[in-house]
Amino acid sequence: MWGMIATWRMALEGVSEAAELLEKEGNASDAIVRAICAVEDFEYYKSVGYGGLPNEEMEVELDAGYMDGDTFDIGCVGAIKDYANPILIARALSKERVNNFLVGAGAEKYAHRHGFVRKNMLSERAKIHYHNRIVENRDQELKPYAGHDTVGMVCLDTQGHMTAATSTSGLFMKHAGRVGDSPVLGAGFYVDSQVGGASATGFGEDVMKGCVSYEIVRLMKEGMHPQKACDQAVQTFDRELRRRRGKAGDMSLIAMNQKGEWGVSTNIDNFSFVVAGEKQKPTVYLAKKDEAGNSYFEEADEAWMEEYMRVRTAPLAYK
Amino acid sequence: MWGMIATWRMALEGVSEAAELLEKEGNASDAIVRAICAVEDFEYYKSVGYGGLPNEEMEVELDAGYMDGDTFDIGCVGAIKDYANPILIARALSKERVNNFLVGAGAEKYAHRHGFVRKNMLSERAKIHYHNRIVENRDQELKPYAGHDTVGMVCLDTQGHMTAATSTSGLFMKHAGRVGDSPVLGAGFYVDSQVGGASATGFGEDVMKGCVSYEIVRLMKEGMHPQKACDQAVQTFDRELRRRRGKAGDMSLIAMNQKGEWGVSTNIDNFSFVVAGEKQKPTVYLAKKDEAGNSYFEEADEAWMEEYMRVRTAPLAYK
Repeated sequence: MWGMIATWRMALEGVSEAAELLEKEGNASDAIVRAICAVEDFEYYKSVGYGGLPNEEMEVELDAGYMDGDTFDIGCVGAIKDYANPILIARALSKERVNNFLVGAGAEKYAHRHGFVRKNMLSERAKIHYHNRIVENRDQELKPYAGHDTVGMVCLDTQGHMTAATSTSGLFMKHAGRVGDSPVLGAGFYVDSQVGGASATGFGEDVMKGCVSYEIVRLMKEGMHPQKACDQAVQTFDRELRRRRGKAGDMSLIAMNQKGEWGVSTNIDNFSFVVAGEKQKPTVYLAKKDEAGNSYFEEADEAWMEEYMRVRTAPLAYK
Repeated sequence: MWGMIATWRMALEGVSEAAELLEKEGNASDAIVRAICAVEDFEYYKSVGYGGLPNEEMEVELDAGYMDGDTFDIGCVGAIKDYANPILIARALSKERVNNFLVGAGAEKYAHRHGFVRKNMLSERAKIHYHNRIVENRDQELKPYAGHDTVGMVCLDTQGHMTAATSTSGLFMKHAGRVGDSPVLGAGFYVDSQVGGASATGFGEDVMKGCVSYEIVRLMKEGMHPQKACDQAVQTFDRELRRRRGKAGDMSLIAMNQKGEWGVSTNIDNFSFVVAGEKQKPTVYLAKKDEAGNSYFEEADEAWMEEYMRVRTAPLAYK
């Protein structure tokens, strides 16, 4: 038995690579890192790794997190610039005795000393997006863009070892040094190999307020199915935010337990996610929310899949 | 009804100032910030604010967190240098619509633009500690020091409004850019005015793994008394860490509910903390752990109080 679940359609290629590893009894650490690296490396995904959209100073600052569900080792980087694969740095940090969460210039020093690959993470397409946003907002205050598509994954290998990981460039036009939920354990990701794992994407400032990934794992530990755990945690917290704050930021969570059963819950429409397992080839689903607040999902059809890639790779021009 | 609980004896002066405010129906936001500022400003406390011990590069890098239990507003700074009162910056960030968690140079830019007071946070005493540590460890690899005394507080005002906040210079000799649990919501602090709040001090890399402050508030929400909630969360997680990792880092948690009842739990000996309330003048207690894993505590006696301050203010010399 092995399995993997990941946020957003963009995870498909990475999950497919990882599935091949897992099928051959590869371990959950290598598989999840391989999958996240594939997303970080693909320049057309504009919220993770290379090609990620920059902050208000036109700098791409990246967050990533990694957790080992056997040992509870954790590694996190926040607001790191110009390294090709933040997830590799996060995993390396998880092996350290201390200093497991590093941010900014300090994280870059660690990465440099440990020989991680430097890369100017600002792509030509990202520059065009930045320029155009400035032009479009000439008469207004520059505000962080609502898009915030973290890739988050949970992985189970044939040995029963589980991992969770995230990677993101965070909010487009964010303030320099802004850290979202993705490198924050409990909010962006959490995993316990004896129970299961969860990961989040959405408006990090709100996801953090509910420790939502931790809460889902906790509910699964009480015996709840991942689908019910996701719905209960996400919908309860969404209501709580609306009650306290009048509104709730976007929030989509995925989870998988140690039996390979999985679940998803979202407060937005058309949250795409990817699942793969021994009996299931890597598949993209679209999650929606019904009127009772429960999530349901269906497989993405061919037209949706084509449109997805067409939009992301469409030519871009300076305005 | 009002009340306040805080980690470590060093909180006493700040809690006493805050108690005066709360007695006069001051609000929980101003009171907690006043109390934390007092600790940040006192140069003889070597793990918070001015006088805090530096990282391996002899730079004092500070973490702080703030949460409003009514609105769930949160503000966090990580690895910020040379600002007098990180807690003031954290509270200011909690009022922002987005970008609530800022780290490193980006956090410093925000603080600069918003007029926060610059201060070289490296005191003469901290320089001596740094120098002496280098001398003592001449033949060994420099390792982060085990001391990690975050000031963490929970505050309840006469209007029923609750806040939680933390501030720390983190581990002595930490890596540049290292962030601990103190600015991480759910780990270092959490509060819900309808339930109660909790805050942590200890080995941040381990505290983070259990979202321990969130867990305590969750247990209180189920109706548990703060004392029982602290014991259950801390002792369960301590055992879990030992089982998974063979050991557990130091961990001490305090909590108060919306009725002003409070609790404490620790896995170390002689964890000092401060409580104040309508019927209780600011008092220092020492918490210990009995053989069954339950915490008990007693008031610190005069000898302990005198020795505490004598040690902290004793003359220091370069070795």
